[in-house]
Amino acid sequence: SSSSIEDVDQAGTLLQLCVDRHYVSPGQPNVELFQRGMCCSYGPLGTELRRNLLDQWWHSVTGSRAQVFGLNTLSSSSSRDRAADGGGQLRMVESEHLKQLLDRQELSKEQLIQEVRMLLQRSPSVRTNLLQGALEQFVPSMELVNRKLPFGLAETGLCLQPSRGSGCPAEVTQTSLVWFCSPRTSSQWLDHWTRQRLRWWRKFARSPSDFSSSEVPEEELEEPASRGVRIIYHFPWGPESLETLWSRGNSELLHTHQGVRSKLQPRGGQKSIPHVVSVTGNMDRGMMAFLSNSLQQLKREDSKQRLQQRRVLKLHPVLAPVKVALDIGRGATVEMRRVCEGLLQEFLEANILAWPGYLDTAQTSMEQLNTKYDEMGVLFTVVIGENTLESGLLQVRSRDTTIKETMHISEIRNFLSRYISAADNI
Amino acid sequence: SSSSIEDVDQAGTLLQLCVDRHYVSPGQPNVELFQRGMCCSYGPLGTELRRNLLDQWWHSVTGSRAQVFGLNTLSSSSSRDRAADGGGQLRMVESEHLKQLLDRQELSKEQLIQEVRMLLQRSPSVRTNLLQGALEQFVPSMELVNRKLPFGLAETGLCLQPSRGSGCPAEVTQTSLVWFCSPRTSSQWLDHWTRQRLRWWRKFARSPSDFSSSEVPEEELEEPASRGVRIIYHFPWGPESLETLWSRGNSELLHTHQGVRSKLQPRGGQKSIPHVVSVTGNMDRGMMAFLSNSLQQLKREDSKQRLQQRRVLKLHPVLAPVKVALDIGRGATVEMRRVCEGLLQEFLEANILAWPGYLDTAQTSMEQLNTKYDEMGVLFTVVIGENTLESGLLQVRSRDTTIKETMHISEIRNFLSRYISAADNI
Repeated sequence: SSSSIEDVDQAGTLLQLCVDRHYVSPGQPNVELFQRGMCCSYGPLGTELRRNLLDQWWHSVTGSRAQVFGLNTLSSSSSRDRAADGGGQLRMVESEHLKQLLDRQELSKEQLIQEVRMLLQRSPSVRTNLLQGALEQFVPSMELVNRKLPFGLAETGLCLQPSRGSGCPAEVTQTSLVWFCSPRTSSQWLDHWTRQRLRWWRKFARSPSDFSSSEVPEEELEEPASRGVRIIYHFPWGPESLETLWSRGNSELLHTHQGVRSKLQPRGGQKSIPHVVSVTGNMDRGMMAFLSNSLQQLKREDSKQRLQQRRVLKLHPVLAPVKVALDIGRGATVEMRRVCEGLLQEFLEANILAWPGYLDTAQTSMEQLNTKYDEMGVLFTVVIGENTLESGLLQVRSRDTTIKETMHISEIRNFLSRYISAADNI
Repeated sequence: SSSSIEDVDQAGTLLQLCVDRHYVSPGQPNVELFQRGMCCSYGPLGTELRRNLLDQWWHSVTGSRAQVFGLNTLSSSSSRDRAADGGGQLRMVESEHLKQLLDRQELSKEQLIQEVRMLLQRSPSVRTNLLQGALEQFVPSMELVNRKLPFGLAETGLCLQPSRGSGCPAEVTQTSLVWFCSPRTSSQWLDHWTRQRLRWWRKFARSPSDFSSSEVPEEELEEPASRGVRIIYHFPWGPESLETLWSRGNSELLHTHQGVRSKLQPRGGQKSIPHVVSVTGNMDRGMMAFLSNSLQQLKREDSKQRLQQRRVLKLHPVLAPVKVALDIGRGATVEMRRVCEGLLQEFLEANILAWPGYLDTAQTSMEQLNTKYDEMGVLFTVVIGENTLESGLLQVRSRDTTIKETMHISEIRNFLSRYISAADNI
């Protein structure tokens, strides 16, 4: 159907824009990783977007309740039996050691096989999720809350996905909350966190209804989960899962601690082993979802009455990597450049990411400049002209309204700070 | 000598304190990793300290000049020849594939060796530093600055250190700035970045003179570096390097881009290939340096006139993981707990990390509480008492002055925000 062609087209447009506008580094294999919801090599804008997204996730989860604590575990671990971790599928092997084994002429085939097996056994396994680390830290973490339930452990970090036969393992920027609670409340907590997570995704959306939650059908449940919910984004090419919540029971916790129940029991009369609710997100796909959701395509006439497509990346002000671009109007002088440098420094000190457009001295028209910054999702463009040197006035264009305002140079920083923090509190 | 015994003791005290106060997860192998300046499993306070440190590094480097751009590259890469990366020392091998090979009875020894070699060749190599990724992104990044020098690429992330024979490869939280400049300015830039970096380390120190820079002696220079500088911290057990700056010439850049000089030349008359200055930091050791530097041990008398050691972790207010702890005085009630919860929420919304001390209802004296929070490095302790419910007044104790002030509940958030941002601007 024509609609599916349009959708495929939309995906192509989005990916091309991501490469052209410094979100994703160029190169077909890299772009394909991104499209599959995997971590790829990001350009400066993609790097900042991911930073912003991870920061927001972190604050929303660790700041949502008193009982959520941050955690950082190792991404590889030596020869432990990792119950919740695919059993050491991926191993980090020292290439030289293996080559030295293969070079040992005196070994028989059987001896060689034996030696290679032992090397593999000794090689550290790479994590495929953040769950296992949190399960291991359950016991020391209980002391933080005087051994009382519920509480949670939050972590973000890279995990590896085994290739499952085809090609090469890929990296994913994962977020994880592992929530420990009493058995009878685990289903309620699953609902609680589902609501909390969905609200978070929708907070930054241009079109919130594209984000939804859906219960995992019973036949799709994997051991040991008794219930599951997916937070879904409806991409132009179909729905994909951004974050998954599982009610996992207590078998993995018991297994991780060799079944020593006494270590796992909370204070008080309760003899029951805590149940685990896991909330696992893929922030690479999350980036893609917000980029896709924020891309607005508008038909409009250019100054020569030709019909053109205007593309704007209307990323939420909190997520937008570049808050303000600094440019020089016609007739650039050394003084104007100095004004730009001073303003840039002022913005950076106030933690407002500013784009040094004035470094790119290629002659571009204002129209081309606006097109570029709209596609980058830059919130405001500031143009310094001759006038600025005399009167201190500069032009500020808004991405969302396209309206240009004149403002005094002393006001611009506070204006931006207020704008961003107002958007954060909506 | 007795001084060295004292120093060893100091190291032991510091490490024990890090474990007891939730910086480092318990377990001897974990603590040893941390002591060796490697990434380990961090508790909630260590996780926040690392976040704060990495955030500060990021802002200081990407915000220091217009021409520094953030970057995120992959931590593993398929079968590429990584010049600056130890030549693929560590490989990520899919355990099942290798085992299947070993199980194939029909293969002769020579065939088996051949197959294992090919599997190793196909397996992605894991990065040991962030330099290679930046070298690869040099060409697309040049477009950001209209192909003009100088500019830089910044990245933070985990890297692996090969075990060099003994034991197991270890992870390091690395920071990297790769600076591209004209050949004749590279030595000046090395000096510029050395000054900038040293200033940064000293900004957060209790005793800034423990941080110093030192030129790498010519006989210790490794190919292709022509000059090097180390930022050193003088630990009680000796000096160790926190960040290293190298003037690396252009051979690695040329090698990465297969010697295609035309791609690498900047705009304008210059035909010369840019030189590279690398600035590489180890933020796990950086954490250890700041923890060590901030630990103050004071003799004092307790309330029963016994001589005691008072230990305070005087971390810089910007780095301190917990800004404020919330506790309930004698005679805790449900209402007091609600006041705590409300205040906690208020702090978290203002991005002030608060510690829910009131969750730990174990009966501890104020003295024990102060000892605990001083060792955690908590800036302020707020105690809610009966009085608070009536008058809105609460007690605020400062870690650094140990003075207790009475403050109205409506003032505390602004007081803390002002205190932290004032410390940031010194």
